[in-house]
Amino acid sequence: MEITGNKYDSLRAVSDHSQDPYANAGVEYSVLDAWKRNAQMAAARTVLHLQNRHISELAGTRGESAYVIDIGTALLATVTEGLGTKNLVADAVRPITGRTHYDDIAQDTIATILNDLATVGAAPLTLTAFWAAGSSNWFADSERMSDLVAGWERACSTARVAWGGGETQTLLNMIGPETVVLGGSALGFISPKERLLSGNRLTEGDAILVAPATGIHTNGLTLARKLAATLPEGYATKVPGDATGRGFGEVLLDPTPLYGPLVETLQEARVDLHYAVHVTGHGWRKLMRAERDMSYVIDALPTPPPILTALQQWAHLSDAEAYGTFNMGAGFALFAPNTQAASAIRAAKSSGWDLLPVGHTEHGPRKVVLRPNHVTFEGVSLQIR
Amino acid sequence: MEITGNKYDSLRAVSDHSQDPYANAGVEYSVLDAWKRNAQMAAARTVLHLQNRHISELAGTRGESAYVIDIGTALLATVTEGLGTKNLVADAVRPITGRTHYDDIAQDTIATILNDLATVGAAPLTLTAFWAAGSSNWFADSERMSDLVAGWERACSTARVAWGGGETQTLLNMIGPETVVLGGSALGFISPKERLLSGNRLTEGDAILVAPATGIHTNGLTLARKLAATLPEGYATKVPGDATGRGFGEVLLDPTPLYGPLVETLQEARVDLHYAVHVTGHGWRKLMRAERDMSYVIDALPTPPPILTALQQWAHLSDAEAYGTFNMGAGFALFAPNTQAASAIRAAKSSGWDLLPVGHTEHGPRKVVLRPNHVTFEGVSLQIR
Repeated sequence: MEITGNKYDSLRAVSDHSQDPYANAGVEYSVLDAWKRNAQMAAARTVLHLQNRHISELAGTRGESAYVIDIGTALLATVTEGLGTKNLVADAVRPITGRTHYDDIAQDTIATILNDLATVGAAPLTLTAFWAAGSSNWFADSERMSDLVAGWERACSTARVAWGGGETQTLLNMIGPETVVLGGSALGFISPKERLLSGNRLTEGDAILVAPATGIHTNGLTLARKLAATLPEGYATKVPGDATGRGFGEVLLDPTPLYGPLVETLQEARVDLHYAVHVTGHGWRKLMRAERDMSYVIDALPTPPPILTALQQWAHLSDAEAYGTFNMGAGFALFAPNTQAASAIRAAKSSGWDLLPVGHTEHGPRKVVLRPNHVTFEGVSLQIR
Repeated sequence: MEITGNKYDSLRAVSDHSQDPYANAGVEYSVLDAWKRNAQMAAARTVLHLQNRHISELAGTRGESAYVIDIGTALLATVTEGLGTKNLVADAVRPITGRTHYDDIAQDTIATILNDLATVGAAPLTLTAFWAAGSSNWFADSERMSDLVAGWERACSTARVAWGGGETQTLLNMIGPETVVLGGSALGFISPKERLLSGNRLTEGDAILVAPATGIHTNGLTLARKLAATLPEGYATKVPGDATGRGFGEVLLDPTPLYGPLVETLQEARVDLHYAVHVTGHGWRKLMRAERDMSYVIDALPTPPPILTALQQWAHLSDAEAYGTFNMGAGFALFAPNTQAASAIRAAKSSGWDLLPVGHTEHGPRKVVLRPNHVTFEGVSLQIR
């Protein structure tokens, strides 16, 4: 399995070329990731320029999913992210469904950016787009462009962010002529400052609540694409348990939810959130994203979307492999004092969000224990900082 | 000639596939750019989400090179940009020089981002990187990665910006396996707010001052790459007039200056700057970037770097073509009251910057008149908003 994206601001140890990243973690990265450590150190050295402008980096947030600074009157957070390869699935599915699916691809792209921003408790202010295609012809497909633009606006409205503009480029001889690389950046603010979420607020005994996933989201698409090539009807293969009767490819394209409004809802309801994690690459291992010596004990698992159950079966993945790679039904995880779990669930419900209490943090070494399926992810299996 | 990048936040009319964009402007874009108009309108509609957060978009800055919002205590500006194809030149030149040149490529990438930020008078706070390669092997070249990281840090230090992190991705089947797409995003602040530069501050009679270019910068590389294929010794061909005796390819790779510190220097010296333009695509046509009915009259032209003189000769470009495409020696243009031109030049000089007074604005239709070489660019030839 390939990990297509990672934050080198925070990387010590992710190998992005391993076939089995969680099993191999700690093995091959020593050479390949030397540059990441160098980049991390080089980036940290540049903080003095911020200090010279009388602005400070927030201690402990370098390495979180968004970079946070304190400008005195407010905390500001920035994220730059890219979609990855999911649009290749849309391109392959279009002949089957007759739809471009780039409206949903737009939402996926924005979700990769804004769900990261939401993990630090930042409300999004502005979002800029980066769309780079391999030929100018790519932009000439008016149906696809219309879907992309409409989906982009729709997702911005759902996330309540202003689309400030963006950059389009045609990169001949760099990007495939039929392909586009989609990404972007966002600026958020954390106000009042107490809304900041960071790993050092986590406390033993915190409840772990998860918001449901809608499907594969934007993680694991390389595996899914390889799998499609082996299925009898390829992307048109029906997905067992999917009530809609759609094909594998179309179901893969169900877009990632925008979880920012959920975080905002809870904060406005004065739930004392401690931390948040966007469950993407590394699946449930992501729950121990914080650099804390703490165990994450899971007593209940959400029902995975049928597409992920099918993927696990078709790819012959063990539970450890599936839960260590895919979201398996948990799109976004929130941590709050146990005493506030019920009110968090109520507040979420009143805004249309389901929140499932799945476990708690407790004293112990850094690891994730999935009791229902007897899977344990040791701390060494997630070294993304 | 291909224009590889443009801001669709502001686009009405750039055709990015024309062989001769300024001559054809207004001809082919009507179909291809419908999506840009739609994107522009869709983006503008999302501003209400900012208003709902009691934050405002700055009137008139949508369509400038950076997007500016007012959070009450400060103005914030954001930019997302990509390098384009210049690193393909570095890849081709490496076997000749034995150097990766990715330190300079890093500076070019950061310059595309921060020079845009500087045009609105924003000092950079944080910068995030987006590096997407076509294979994980791309990141395994330790010499190249070391140069990229070192150059990135060096450019951040020159520009006085904090490198907040970034995203690296491996995009199999999307980007060529030997290739990387480089880009990023920056957040700047404008403080005091009066430092905001925007087209509506331009006044008839303003002096036009230009800061010298060091070479081709990041614009026109597609033409340069095609040309290299026709030269007797390719990228190793000597450049007439280049005192260093280096080959065409190596000279092409001279990095773009970071003009932000120049703008900051002038503002700290209390020069009442009115507007600034980063001279990239569209060459000297860029001087009329502001949406103003005003003429830009040039009485003196800087001496072009030898690489641009050579390019003009080798590609058999007329002055209109050369000045309408390349910077021809003007890397960055500043507009200020004529009475302040001398003090601006002095303040710049004291910080090591040359500023050349080249002309002035005056009453008249929107056009750029280059008197020394009898070239006029009519307003219709620059429609990038």
